[in-house]
Amino acid sequence: MESIPSIFLSERVSKLLPRYQQFVQEHLKPLEQGAIYGSFKAHLPALHELRRKAKLEGLFAPHLSVKEGGIGLSLLEFASISEVLGQSPIGHFVFNCQAPDIGNMELLHRFASEDLKVKYLHPLQKGEIRSCFAMTEPEHAGSNPIHLSTRAELDGDEYVINGHKWFTSSADGAYFTIVMAVTDPDNTNPYQRASMILVPLDNPGYRLIRNIPIMGDVGEDYLSHGEVEFKDCRVHKSYLIGEAGSGFALAQERLGPGRIHHCMRWIGICERVLELTCKRAATRELNPNHVLADQQSIQHGIAESAAEIKASRLMVLQTAYLIEKYGAKAAKEDISTIKFYVSNVLMRVIDKAIQVHGALGITDDTLLSFWYRHERGAKIYDGPDEVHKTVLAKRIIQSYAAR
Amino acid sequence: MESIPSIFLSERVSKLLPRYQQFVQEHLKPLEQGAIYGSFKAHLPALHELRRKAKLEGLFAPHLSVKEGGIGLSLLEFASISEVLGQSPIGHFVFNCQAPDIGNMELLHRFASEDLKVKYLHPLQKGEIRSCFAMTEPEHAGSNPIHLSTRAELDGDEYVINGHKWFTSSADGAYFTIVMAVTDPDNTNPYQRASMILVPLDNPGYRLIRNIPIMGDVGEDYLSHGEVEFKDCRVHKSYLIGEAGSGFALAQERLGPGRIHHCMRWIGICERVLELTCKRAATRELNPNHVLADQQSIQHGIAESAAEIKASRLMVLQTAYLIEKYGAKAAKEDISTIKFYVSNVLMRVIDKAIQVHGALGITDDTLLSFWYRHERGAKIYDGPDEVHKTVLAKRIIQSYAAR
Amino acid sequence: MESIPSIFLSERVSKLLPRYQQFVQEHLKPLEQGAIYGSFKAHLPALHELRRKAKLEGLFAPHLSVKEGGIGLSLLEFASISEVLGQSPIGHFVFNCQAPDIGNMELLHRFASEDLKVKYLHPLQKGEIRSCFAMTEPEHAGSNPIHLSTRAELDGDEYVINGHKWFTSSADGAYFTIVMAVTDPDNTNPYQRASMILVPLDNPGYRLIRNIPIMGDVGEDYLSHGEVEFKDCRVHKSYLIGEAGSGFALAQERLGPGRIHHCMRWIGICERVLELTCKRAATRELNPNHVLADQQSIQHGIAESAAEIKASRLMVLQTAYLIEKYGAKAAKEDISTIKFYVSNVLMRVIDKAIQVHGALGITDDTLLSFWYRHERGAKIYDGPDEVHKTVLAKRIIQSYAAR
Amino acid sequence: MESIPSIFLSERVSKLLPRYQQFVQEHLKPLEQGAIYGSFKAHLPALHELRRKAKLEGLFAPHLSVKEGGIGLSLLEFASISEVLGQSPIGHFVFNCQAPDIGNMELLHRFASEDLKVKYLHPLQKGEIRSCFAMTEPEHAGSNPIHLSTRAELDGDEYVINGHKWFTSSADGAYFTIVMAVTDPDNTNPYQRASMILVPLDNPGYRLIRNIPIMGDVGEDYLSHGEVEFKDCRVHKSYLIGEAGSGFALAQERLGPGRIHHCMRWIGICERVLELTCKRAATRELNPNHVLADQQSIQHGIAESAAEIKASRLMVLQTAYLIEKYGAKAAKEDISTIKFYVSNVLMRVIDKAIQVHGALGITDDTLLSFWYRHERGAKIYDGPDEVHKTVLAKRIIQSYAAR
Repeated sequence: MESIPSIFLSERVSKLLPRYQQFVQEHLKPLEQGAIYGSFKAHLPALHELRRKAKLEGLFAPHLSVKEGGIGLSLLEFASISEVLGQSPIGHFVFNCQAPDIGNMELLHRFASEDLKVKYLHPLQKGEIRSCFAMTEPEHAGSNPIHLSTRAELDGDEYVINGHKWFTSSADGAYFTIVMAVTDPDNTNPYQRASMILVPLDNPGYRLIRNIPIMGDVGEDYLSHGEVEFKDCRVHKSYLIGEAGSGFALAQERLGPGRIHHCMRWIGICERVLELTCKRAATRELNPNHVLADQQSIQHGIAESAAEIKASRLMVLQTAYLIEKYGAKAAKEDISTIKFYVSNVLMRVIDKAIQVHGALGITDDTLLSFWYRHERGAKIYDGPDEVHKTVLAKRIIQSYAAR
Repeated sequence: MESIPSIFLSERVSKLLPRYQQFVQEHLKPLEQGAIYGSFKAHLPALHELRRKAKLEGLFAPHLSVKEGGIGLSLLEFASISEVLGQSPIGHFVFNCQAPDIGNMELLHRFASEDLKVKYLHPLQKGEIRSCFAMTEPEHAGSNPIHLSTRAELDGDEYVINGHKWFTSSADGAYFTIVMAVTDPDNTNPYQRASMILVPLDNPGYRLIRNIPIMGDVGEDYLSHGEVEFKDCRVHKSYLIGEAGSGFALAQERLGPGRIHHCMRWIGICERVLELTCKRAATRELNPNHVLADQQSIQHGIAESAAEIKASRLMVLQTAYLIEKYGAKAAKEDISTIKFYVSNVLMRVIDKAIQVHGALGITDDTLLSFWYRHERGAKIYDGPDEVHKTVLAKRIIQSYAAR
Repeated sequence: MESIPSIFLSERVSKLLPRYQQFVQEHLKPLEQGAIYGSFKAHLPALHELRRKAKLEGLFAPHLSVKEGGIGLSLLEFASISEVLGQSPIGHFVFNCQAPDIGNMELLHRFASEDLKVKYLHPLQKGEIRSCFAMTEPEHAGSNPIHLSTRAELDGDEYVINGHKWFTSSADGAYFTIVMAVTDPDNTNPYQRASMILVPLDNPGYRLIRNIPIMGDVGEDYLSHGEVEFKDCRVHKSYLIGEAGSGFALAQERLGPGRIHHCMRWIGICERVLELTCKRAATRELNPNHVLADQQSIQHGIAESAAEIKASRLMVLQTAYLIEKYGAKAAKEDISTIKFYVSNVLMRVIDKAIQVHGALGITDDTLLSFWYRHERGAKIYDGPDEVHKTVLAKRIIQSYAAR
Repeated sequence: MESIPSIFLSERVSKLLPRYQQFVQEHLKPLEQGAIYGSFKAHLPALHELRRKAKLEGLFAPHLSVKEGGIGLSLLEFASISEVLGQSPIGHFVFNCQAPDIGNMELLHRFASEDLKVKYLHPLQKGEIRSCFAMTEPEHAGSNPIHLSTRAELDGDEYVINGHKWFTSSADGAYFTIVMAVTDPDNTNPYQRASMILVPLDNPGYRLIRNIPIMGDVGEDYLSHGEVEFKDCRVHKSYLIGEAGSGFALAQERLGPGRIHHCMRWIGICERVLELTCKRAATRELNPNHVLADQQSIQHGIAESAAEIKASRLMVLQTAYLIEKYGAKAAKEDISTIKFYVSNVLMRVIDKAIQVHGALGITDDTLLSFWYRHERGAKIYDGPDEVHKTVLAKRIIQSYAAR
């Protein structure tokens, strides 16, 4: 964290930050390596105990309104808290603001029927259940989201869903998913062909084929990425989220704040990684008279990381500010920008940290290995860098050409 | 410029910006290439005519108080104006807020005697005279400012200055210089050995040896970099700026806001360069069906430049905000950061623009050649990148080690 | 592989290459993913079957003399074969030229007693046993090899070894190790303090503490990295390799050709990764009319990778040629250069391949995940990049300063 | 130069190299800065005196056969000489192997009539006249050479040429040009529409509009880049080079060896720049106890430059070897590769050198400014990097897809 408060920091958040920092320090750091390198499932009781503690301290679910059990922070306010939570790989989970659940909460809050809210949103907000989001298909490039094969056909009062998805993150152990499926394949507007439908996962038409092994980890429960199948999977038509054909519009709504959440989590990781780097550099002896921190190449790496982290933070906070003040549409260029800028900073910061740690850096004895492996996806999911850069550039070129 | 206003933009500046933008568009763009590629001296009458116009429109010297003939902007407010002026290589000059004069104005305003103010500061503020700043010596690495050979010895009421300086920018045609000279060589604190002294340039002990040819340009008048000599150069001791031995302290004071000024000017250059890039890309045909802007490599270059410019702007504005609110000392890390971060962005943005322009990019038919050549120094002057990175890293490592 | 033969390719190797390529294609590719992502131990029977096949075809152990059961290739000749084998993660293992065994074979061949050769070298050359090499200590920076705590004290006819090592690669299942231990701690020349000693691993004073989890894999057997302990571990003094105090000299001897082996293996990986990239790009549809390979950003990434792979190959082959013709000492600059140049190329090529593969790239469904994780160490082991760059630079600066 | 001979160095060249090196040291270095920063014209007598000296020493025109007044080196042999000459900006000129004349010599040697050879080639080979090459047009992107507006229409026995060209390098003072003009605009094969025609520059239909100011230099004589006009410019049809419609085929022939020449010259520049860097670093004091060369960031920059220069040299020499042995067509991928790889190395090496030189680096007091400015075009002329990368990638992808 910055040592002096930026223009983006409200007084309220200034007071909350040290409380979250202390919680991370006291309760999360002792548990985190066990949970991510060991069995996540085995750590669930301890993690749920921490959730209770967070509730008691009035820190749980900072993104939800007080009525919903949270503390009612704005997007911009939550961003700074998110940076603190991101410093531990179990931070967001403990405070029940982890992806994909936080996105699903937003979707259901805004677009689901009262019935669905009662059955699915409320227990989700309380942290009693988990959910997942089934969009990506192995057969189609994620960079072109309109190419989907999964179909949902109305048969009487029911949608009949057939399709094959993967990277349905956290499917293992989830209570329900929201699935993106084509409901109107012949619509002349390709962006109005798909819809989002909630599917409870005890549905016999649904199957978790496997937890996909990702970068050496099969994973389990929350820390997993499912390959799943819908085979004549029937749900009542009232399980539609929003209107039929609104799938892409809702996905866009989901992505705006989702981008802020991801980016601030990444910045939190960067901060923690920089801390690990500095501490290692300051204490690792090269010889009795010198430590790594005396090496200019290491100093410069640290300075460059610090600069890029600072730049990232300001851009993401500014984007949150713009979304709040002018709406996500007005901030579209900023939203594209932070996705590819911050994900690249993240990978560079982690990579430099590994180099400073030497042999230790490639072991699972520190958090670096986890992040090096599991955040490589940051440049890929929610649209690869290449797509965001092209989208951004076209808008910029157009704006200049128009002058 | 950003299309939607950032959190840093005051209402007052929001109203001023379009007026400056229009001035640049109408009055500076038609003149700029002639002034920088032709004879700067020959363009002085036209430039002074523009200064008169700027005064008439109430836009002159935005950094000065109203009483001093300016419009009293704060550091943060001036920063955004500075970005607009930076879009033309003659922008700051016309509005009399160009380096090194703006730094000298600040120094004299705060530390000079009333007498010096009347004789030198007031005409400088009005744009009637120009000044320069003699610090760097060819015999000593600029990255270590305490190594200076220039001496100023008190002889009765006079300082007798002997020394050899270069990169005394804009010395040609200047009315006075401020020279950094060692006055107390035996002080145990090496940072208290030097002082700043004002020297009128008609002094017989001063000589402009040459305008140093820089990147193909000998330059002249304001657009020049002098190699100068002080030989038994005598000035009355009242020409001391501040106290004896305070040279480095004053240089530090000068550098803080100076960094903001430089960085915002560089960001202005980046903006203009990005505009040139986009316009070229949007219109240059590769074949009858495609323009350069259709090429993904060019799109990505533009997106990356835009992201880095955005990051730069936010960091510099945030730094200006911190200096205003907490003082330059508290913002020291930020001040180091922007120096090396923004100068590198600048060079990358210019280099990519040249590539997009193809053969045209290396000619003097656009502004790119001027900036490619004359801003290469940005990574060197006011301390090379390497020094700033090391300074920053040491502070960061220390702060983590202390936790 | 290059489509037209380079100047470095002998006729003999030209004829051998297609045979190795076919072996890799037919026998290794079907097995490789199972062996590295599944249980390596469970695949040992199949791997040993392949070794028998390689022997039958006269391709086994290409680096050994015919008398020793190999085919007697020179260092330069073996390099090109090594590139082919490197294309499969089990290539070198099957042909019994894998690190660390190949290095140990060289050491024992040149410096061990006849008795040790009979007991340890010969079965090692035949592939009947495996070995490991215990040098790195967790308490000391690997970049400064003279700092070792492991001691071997003579007690009568026996060395008594005490120490703690890690990254004793492939210790799990190995028959013996060569350990680097300080035998003469007071020698004024720090490079003459240590010796290499062979230790059979059934020695009660030796303990494999754990297979260190590396980048998500605990590993087993050959694919493991041991943390080991020597506690009053006694071996007869005849188990000394070379002379007492020659540890560093031998380590240097070991590193020269070892560098060639590693680098050519890395280049093999690069080739395979580029092949995967191109095939993915050529077939992955973005939409019905376009594949990934039509994207300019992907084309440019492929071109840059190809250029860097070509540069790497030429530099490594040229280094092998120089070692053969002028000796390792004369080629010292080249040996330093290839270490840091090729390891960085390797990481860039892999990283770009992952990006092209999108979500698939971060799964364990391709080889990319294995190499992304397990080759990150390439920039660290055998001396981190930073050390090699400094060593090289000092020699270059000296050579110019002397002119 | 490498301190130990590479595999590419023939015995003959090994003996020649020190003689060229000494010539450069003794005769070119004292003259070079004057010639490039002062008036090139004024230095012509001295340069021609050096040509006479080179002839006397049997070193002149190493690329020409002995019969033609040269020493009959092969492409590969000449490459290593070219690296030595490239270390001085006047090297190739003095030895009469400078672009564009060397390319024109090759063209005329292979494709011109006896009559043209006597009138133009022979005096060109002797260094009595200079020539230029008019291909690029300001109205068309150089990256797509088939778009040309310049027309040559047969009218009786004469071609009537009309068109507008720029970057007709060295036009100022040249005796003739070879112009690329469309002679068959309706040919269905766009690559067979243009022809090359020799035009003596005293032709009244030809006009040198201006020497284009490039990166701050208007230039003159050999060191210039002309914008030229052909207006009803009539030449006899026997001035056609090769066959009508063969323009692009000849341009391709011209480019293959031309690429080797350019690249080796760039590598020579790199070598010289690295030498300047090392000497500066070894002698510039940061303080009484340290020089720049003690800084790790400078060491690493030098090591990286050295590695990239080594890689460049091997790739270019290997390409020359392949062209000689298998023909330019077989080496097409290599020829594309070296163009973009080496030009980027060149720019990085120069940029780092400037940073090491600090303020001195941006002055015209060293050669760095000249090369920083005038070699920026290396990434643009003969096809921008972007085009070469795409061409190379398409071939690579195709070759893998075909396997």
